Amino acid sequence: MATQDQVITCKAAVAWEANKPLVIEDVQVAPPQAGEVRIKILFTALCHTDAYTWSGKDPEGLFPCILGHEAAGIVESVGEGVTEVQPGDHVIPCYQAECRECKFCKSGKTNLCGKVRLATGVGVMLTDRKSRFSVNGKPIYHFMGTSTFSQYTVVHDVSVAKIHPQAPLEKVCLLGCGVPTGLGAVWNTAKVEAGSNVAIFGLGTVGLAVAEGAKTAGASRIIGVDIDSKKFDIAKKFGVNEFVNPKDHDKPIQQVIVDLTDGGVDYSFECIGNVSVMRAALECCHKGWGTSVIVGVAASGQEISTRPFQLVTGRVWKGTAFGGFKSRSQVPWLVDKYMNKEIKVDEYITHTMILHDINEAFDLMHEGGCLRCVLALHP
Amino acid sequence: MATQDQVITCKAAVAWEANKPLVIEDVQVAPPQAGEVRIKILFTALCHTDAYTWSGKDPEGLFPCILGHEAAGIVESVGEGVTEVQPGDHVIPCYQAECRECKFCKSGKTNLCGKVRLATGVGVMLTDRKSRFSVNGKPIYHFMGTSTFSQYTVVHDVSVAKIHPQAPLEKVCLLGCGVPTGLGAVWNTAKVEAGSNVAIFGLGTVGLAVAEGAKTAGASRIIGVDIDSKKFDIAKKFGVNEFVNPKDHDKPIQQVIVDLTDGGVDYSFECIGNVSVMRAALECCHKGWGTSVIVGVAASGQEISTRPFQLVTGRVWKGTAFGGFKSRSQVPWLVDKYMNKEIKVDEYITHTMILHDINEAFDLMHEGGCLRCVLALHP
Ligand SMILES: NC(=O)c1ccc[n+]([C@@H]2O[C@H](COP(=O)([O-])OP(=O)(O)OC[C@H]3O[C@@H](n4cnc5c(N)ncnc54)[C@H](O)[C@@H]3O)[C@@H](O)[C@H]2O)c1
Ligand SMILES: NC(=O)c1ccc[n+]([C@@H]2O[C@H](COP(=O)([O-])OP(=O)(O)OC[C@H]3O[C@@H](n4cnc5c(N)ncnc54)[C@H](O)[C@@H]3O)[C@@H](O)[C@H]2O)c1
Ligand SMILES: [Zn+2]
Ligand SMILES: [Zn+2]
Ligand SMILES: [Zn+2]
Ligand SMILES: [Zn+2]
Repeated sequence: MATQDQVITCKAAVAWEANKPLVIEDVQVAPPQAGEVRIKILFTALCHTDAYTWSGKDPEGLFPCILGHEAAGIVESVGEGVTEVQPGDHVIPCYQAECRECKFCKSGKTNLCGKVRLATGVGVMLTDRKSRFSVNGKPIYHFMGTSTFSQYTVVHDVSVAKIHPQAPLEKVCLLGCGVPTGLGAVWNTAKVEAGSNVAIFGLGTVGLAVAEGAKTAGASRIIGVDIDSKKFDIAKKFGVNEFVNPKDHDKPIQQVIVDLTDGGVDYSFECIGNVSVMRAALECCHKGWGTSVIVGVAASGQEISTRPFQLVTGRVWKGTAFGGFKSRSQVPWLVDKYMNKEIKVDEYITHTMILHDINEAFDLMHEGGCLRCVLALHP
Repeated sequence: MATQDQVITCKAAVAWEANKPLVIEDVQVAPPQAGEVRIKILFTALCHTDAYTWSGKDPEGLFPCILGHEAAGIVESVGEGVTEVQPGDHVIPCYQAECRECKFCKSGKTNLCGKVRLATGVGVMLTDRKSRFSVNGKPIYHFMGTSTFSQYTVVHDVSVAKIHPQAPLEKVCLLGCGVPTGLGAVWNTAKVEAGSNVAIFGLGTVGLAVAEGAKTAGASRIIGVDIDSKKFDIAKKFGVNEFVNPKDHDKPIQQVIVDLTDGGVDYSFECIGNVSVMRAALECCHKGWGTSVIVGVAASGQEISTRPFQLVTGRVWKGTAFGGFKSRSQVPWLVDKYMNKEIKVDEYITHTMILHDINEAFDLMHEGGCLRCVLALHP
């Protein structure tokens, strides 16, 4: 390939400063070093974690940086020692790495991998603790080990899931974050059984994916809770069969759900990122066995609380990151499930735009009608 | 039997008022009604829940009452319809009932039974919502459905575990609360696997029973945490093989444990009832899989808190009541295990006294050297 071993200059959306519009820049993307993969990103979606870091509220956010972590593309070139992917492979970059060698990967108990986290957490690559991105010689930080708001990105090989070459990249990019998070919260973290009652707080992409996961797990009552009643119509398509808008009730929402379900639900999921809703989600669980899973990401410094009696009387409080899926092993499996029409993806995509319009895409994200907006990077 | 169908007048320790010395009174104990069992209590131990309610800090505490819930005795007579025990049976009264019919019992997911709770929670019997105890015609409330600080008590049949007739009642009375709670926290609630690292906060009877449970489960490191270093010697006998006194460290205790264990423990148990220790117990768990079980009972109104990120990164927060044991089904099994020398009981008994000295026994409870004090009721 002509570009291999070369610096590639391409377009990327750079966050120069917190809370200032992203700027489409000509960015220099260095070739991949040992254990690294350079990917031509074809499509990326926007997720709240991007918006959160961009807002400046994330104390670990580093600027300038290239955000983005829900994407799909094609391997352009690989660094020394990379054996599991090669140029031309279709891939999804994964912010949860999977090295298969570290204490976490070998535990068999978690999808959190420790291999590259110390580097990706501070916006650099592991080998030399430097960035592969620059604008006129000024380094630009990586983000979540993915930085998909760029026509080309460099990631660690342990963060690349090789997928079916026929999968439509403009759709399966969603399998890089929100949809697996919701499905996995149900299948891996809560392990919902057939016949269960489930409450889902927040009916965005993550909450709807929880609904779909619960439906395929055979849950009988799937109660959707959202302060935006506009979400209820679409939520029906994902399996939600009862709706509660907290604004319609004077009682605390946990009490509303407990009354509705003769003592509480078997499983609840918080898919908003609001610590008081996290408490409500725990407290609406049935005494003796109800399990609540925190999926939403709260702002830094915020805390959850409850009376310990809630746990002593049998409720369980858990959380999930990327739905507990092992990224390299299981994202390809999710892609196959999508291609076999066993899971939805298209239905979450309410908007498609191009990289150039990324600031407008972020504006849209905060509107009720938007689930996922997918940007084309090489239109 | 001469006493059957008769009111029995016997000695009991009555708590007339919160925080005032218990008074040994002549108490009238009415015959058991339908579904009830009158038990001659031979031995009772003291537990912190008795002291807590007695202190007046329990907003649900009712006075006057007869406290006590960790005991053993012999059935004196049974009410109509009682089929599973008969006069002469050796039994342990259980504050966790097991009716085998309610939603909870049939769920297969919890040991919390709902059948008599609404009555026992307010100090009365289910049939007529009245007490069977009185002093000169004045009713005295029941406590936890057991009221074992009395030579005779009346309990619901769903709260009576029939045990091996040769079991020494002066020992196995402990199997009515503290020891099963600790063992079950490990075996039923946490399900500790061989090779695990465990941290135990608080090395009283409950914490030591956790240690024994962890040892029999094959845990490799069992770290005991107590602010009273006098507990460490005895704790070795129960399987604790490392000790940490928070007073010896400037760092928060969760950090001390994380440093000691290369990232945290697999399982932790809070056996004190202190909400800030509950937080430390969660936060000293290993990212990705560490599970913390709340066993201690905090004072009313107190709350636990943590950053939700602790759960999103894979820690699990649980609690346990009576160690998750189904009382009527499993207490007899625990008694058999004791008789087969598979679990300790004698070793927790540091003092033996008589009912008459119950106020001194409570004083002893707050001294470092005391684990369990057993009172003889018919010496
Ligand atoms: N744990 C993980 O690995 C992971 C991965 C991806 C996303 N997330 C998080 O999941 C959360 C949801 O993501 P999303 O993309 O679905 O977001 P979204 O904004 O599309 O959806 C949130 C929904 O919650 C509703 N809502 C807001 N406040 C509410 C309240 N008080 N009560 C009830 N409903 C309320 C909104 O109306 C909206 O429908 C975010 O916090 C995101 O950061 C976590
Ligand atoms: N969940 C249940 O079903 C259940 C059943 C029985 C008892 N309990 C509760 O379990 C708890 C323990 O009972 P126990 O009989 O073993 O009590 P205990 O008082 O004998 O033991 C508590 C131990 O904790 C230590 N301690 C106190 N503060 C500490 C701190 N800040 N850090 C470290 N150690 C500290 C004390 O020195 C003592 O050794 C109590 O809260 C009791 O109410 C719960
Ligand atoms: Zn995301
Ligand atoms: Zn790993
Ligand atoms: Zn007790
Ligand atoms: Zn029951």
